[in-house]
Amino acid sequence: FSLDYQHVQVPFEITLWIMLASLAKIGFHLYNKLPSVVPESCLLIFVGLIMGGIIYGLNDRSPPVMDSDIFFLYLLPPIVLDAGYFMPSRPFFENIGTILLYAVVGTIWNVFGIGFSLYGICQVKAFRLQDVSLLHNLLFGSLIAAVDPVAVLAVFEEIHVNEKLHILVFGESLLNDAVTVVLYKLFRSFCEMPTIKSVDVFAGVGKFFVVGLGGVLVGLSFGFTAAFTTRFTKDIRVIEPLFVFLYSYLSYLTAEMFHLSGIVAIISCAMGMKRYVEANISLKSHTTVKYFMKMWSSVSDTLIFIFLGVSTIGENHEWNWPYICFTVIFCLIWRALGVLVLTFFVNRFHVNTITSKDQFIIAYGGLRGAICFSLVFLLPDFHRKKLFIAATTVVILFTVFVQGMTIRPLVDLLAVKRKRESAPTVGEQIHIRFLDHLLAGIEDISGHWGQYYWKDKLEYFNSKYLQKILLREYDQPKSSIVLLYEKLERKHAIELAQAGQLGHGPAQPSFLAVTTDQKLEDTPNPDVLDNMQEILARNLYRIR
Amino acid sequence: FSLDYQHVQVPFEITLWIMLASLAKIGFHLYNKLPSVVPESCLLIFVGLIMGGIIYGLNDRSPPVMDSDIFFLYLLPPIVLDAGYFMPSRPFFENIGTILLYAVVGTIWNVFGIGFSLYGICQVKAFRLQDVSLLHNLLFGSLIAAVDPVAVLAVFEEIHVNEKLHILVFGESLLNDAVTVVLYKLFRSFCEMPTIKSVDVFAGVGKFFVVGLGGVLVGLSFGFTAAFTTRFTKDIRVIEPLFVFLYSYLSYLTAEMFHLSGIVAIISCAMGMKRYVEANISLKSHTTVKYFMKMWSSVSDTLIFIFLGVSTIGENHEWNWPYICFTVIFCLIWRALGVLVLTFFVNRFHVNTITSKDQFIIAYGGLRGAICFSLVFLLPDFHRKKLFIAATTVVILFTVFVQGMTIRPLVDLLAVKRKRESAPTVGEQIHIRFLDHLLAGIEDISGHWGQYYWKDKLEYFNSKYLQKILLREYDQPKSSIVLLYEKLERKHAIELAQAGQLGHGPAQPSFLAVTTDQKLEDTPNPDVLDNMQEILARNLYRIR
Repeated sequence: FSLDYQHVQVPFEITLWIMLASLAKIGFHLYNKLPSVVPESCLLIFVGLIMGGIIYGLNDRSPPVMDSDIFFLYLLPPIVLDAGYFMPSRPFFENIGTILLYAVVGTIWNVFGIGFSLYGICQVKAFRLQDVSLLHNLLFGSLIAAVDPVAVLAVFEEIHVNEKLHILVFGESLLNDAVTVVLYKLFRSFCEMPTIKSVDVFAGVGKFFVVGLGGVLVGLSFGFTAAFTTRFTKDIRVIEPLFVFLYSYLSYLTAEMFHLSGIVAIISCAMGMKRYVEANISLKSHTTVKYFMKMWSSVSDTLIFIFLGVSTIGENHEWNWPYICFTVIFCLIWRALGVLVLTFFVNRFHVNTITSKDQFIIAYGGLRGAICFSLVFLLPDFHRKKLFIAATTVVILFTVFVQGMTIRPLVDLLAVKRKRESAPTVGEQIHIRFLDHLLAGIEDISGHWGQYYWKDKLEYFNSKYLQKILLREYDQPKSSIVLLYEKLERKHAIELAQAGQLGHGPAQPSFLAVTTDQKLEDTPNPDVLDNMQEILARNLYRIR
Repeated sequence: FSLDYQHVQVPFEITLWIMLASLAKIGFHLYNKLPSVVPESCLLIFVGLIMGGIIYGLNDRSPPVMDSDIFFLYLLPPIVLDAGYFMPSRPFFENIGTILLYAVVGTIWNVFGIGFSLYGICQVKAFRLQDVSLLHNLLFGSLIAAVDPVAVLAVFEEIHVNEKLHILVFGESLLNDAVTVVLYKLFRSFCEMPTIKSVDVFAGVGKFFVVGLGGVLVGLSFGFTAAFTTRFTKDIRVIEPLFVFLYSYLSYLTAEMFHLSGIVAIISCAMGMKRYVEANISLKSHTTVKYFMKMWSSVSDTLIFIFLGVSTIGENHEWNWPYICFTVIFCLIWRALGVLVLTFFVNRFHVNTITSKDQFIIAYGGLRGAICFSLVFLLPDFHRKKLFIAATTVVILFTVFVQGMTIRPLVDLLAVKRKRESAPTVGEQIHIRFLDHLLAGIEDISGHWGQYYWKDKLEYFNSKYLQKILLREYDQPKSSIVLLYEKLERKHAIELAQAGQLGHGPAQPSFLAVTTDQKLEDTPNPDVLDNMQEILARNLYRIR
């Protein structure tokens, strides 16, 4: 009897790590009180710290740090795909201007703010930091400034703030990837250049647009190809879900290959394909996609936080009190200032303003996470790299533990507006739709190219061209109201069947019984609803 | 703008191969006539041959062959897991004796038959094969004798023969893995030994039991651990499906690590965990497990056949007409003889005999596939390895193309009994259950330890101990009849909801309307059914 561990080592260890992560998750939930006080991300980092300590104690050398390649190629994409696929598109596009302002201008503000002020600290002779150049400080600023989508998602999913606030912080954390990629690579190449010409700086500015818009283009083209492919999967339902994953992942990898923003690409891909793919694939495939995506991103998320903890233990830190403390302080100050200034401008152009409570949560919710951590390890070797690693680790632990654990009590204390729990009623949906058409008409008449104008044009382009190419059974698609109705009916039917009432008792009026009880008798049946919707849509279009 | 392909190469190429496989599958189904004439496996090998030809033409060197590690560690487990998880347990256990006889004795018969007769061929001077020793011939016999589960599954899923015939061939192809592993490793180590003692031969015989039973033990222990784990996933439904995959894969890897039969382990794990896991996890998790497993195994299957085709092209073949032709002939003859002889004995002990038509299909369905192919590449280097590779390739292509393409017409021609399409009715289920209890009682009284006796004991052990440990909500579990009823009701409810009839028209009697119309009025409601079942079960037990 012999043991052949070598042979199975790679898959065996991967499976064991995933198993550990999953079991840790189960463990937390066995005690119901724990997750309600401490965010799961903190608990997972804590488990990682213990694991790292054990490995360190047993081997007497630093435990393996999280490989940046593994993080960027395998752990990050599932989380971002999940985020993009289930992104609520309405609030996202309604606030896209504000989100972009925070993501682009805000991140640049933070990078330069943190970079220059840390350079100022380095000039103090007593701190013995004079060998850290301005460029190195800016490089460090570029990696520490970006808010991390994984950390934000982990914390904000548990505190249930209102939809707008959530999308502002979360959207920023996703879209700032383009800025981070550009600035990080720019400063890194500047560090290796002998002299920097002004041409290089301008090329850097140009790159912003290339990296961001290139990501969007790559993502959309893969997304539409995915939708087109699912037109032909009617006879082999079994591999339908695969295409959603394959094309999104390819869009991410392609973007990374061309040094574009992979996160932006996968999000565009997911948002672009979603409505067409969902119309083409079967309901079971849809369930599989949905639950598998959630499962996968949850596992990735868990692994990332555990590895963060494991990687913290070890001997790759150089401790310098002033530099590390001032990094934390500057991260907080510059973000707060940035949010205040940018929101001031945003509020001047909007009726629905961002309140000061919201501003506080936006500033406070600027958590750092595994992206910074992976970027700092990717730095070229230079003599202060270990200082940067230490500072990054402290910032991440500070934001995840201190901010992550206090944000929920703060949200309660400030009475920040929460997310509404119930789905919009049919009446609300009709009104929202009606107002959309109305505002599009007003914008059209007044010659203002606002969001409703563009949304309307896009809808027109979609129904005129895209749907014909990308959908299998092309006829006037069911409106979201009818779909909602069908979903509620299905849910109700299953509940009835489970209670064993179907067909045994007298006929029960089931329509929308789930949401309201008064409406029961006078709600129209689906044909009437469909008709109503069609009249609304047709008449509002015809006027123009 | 630079391209960084190196960075993303590994995941990019894996994704592209999977994409190619999936698109090929879609392509075949676009023309409805094609898959009904040619089995998909043949088409996929054909695509692989073309791909291999292109790669060979472009690079002017042999395309990469399928890595045996990749095959055994990543491609095979999903297929076997799928097979084990959805194995119909009743026909499997009813025919376990026959299956084991075919798998163990039949495979040994084939190995020695093919090995010795090929050795005879090698003695003919004109063929110039005198340097191939008896041991090498036996080693070759041990890898070429085993029927391949992947190939069998691919062909038999399309021809829909009756359940018993299917389980005989398919069960044999799964369980012969233990025999193949033992004999292959035995002969390979004999090849490297200077002298062979009789002790080694006896140790080899002992290993059969260790490898087979060890696999079962490893599988069952992981299966029960998986079931136990899902007891605690109530609060985190999202990672439930993961445990099914993780534990099964771990059982496979652990078995491989200890040189046990991984296939046997993963099948025992899947069959052991299934009923408990299904009771513990949510319905959505169950759908995810089911569809993801099907998807994954379908993709693995596709990749295997494509790679088989790709690997065929190249310069690693040594052609020797007599050896290759006689290999094909001996494979056919020895299998036919083996099935005839073994079935003769089987039929003497059974009332429900295997007809001569069935015997023909069993013998003819002995397809070889990727397992042989991977094993032949794992052979230690010796001067006739390329001849063995060529012979294996020809046997695989012959069985998959010639036998795979003609088996469907033959099944039609012989009018082999087909699978019944409809699910058993409630009446049938009650009768089957009643007979089970009756036969268990008769066996008990007559002191005969037959299958019903053991099944009854196992059921008792299960409900007395296992269920209490492994199930979350332990109360008398619902019988399969009630579960079937609930499933039908749910289906019916969804259909009603989709037709928009729910709650609008008068109450329709829905119970079992899907299967029969006459029963409608007098069928009992679920409580009555439950009661009926309980009375049946209790009284039949109490008598003893």
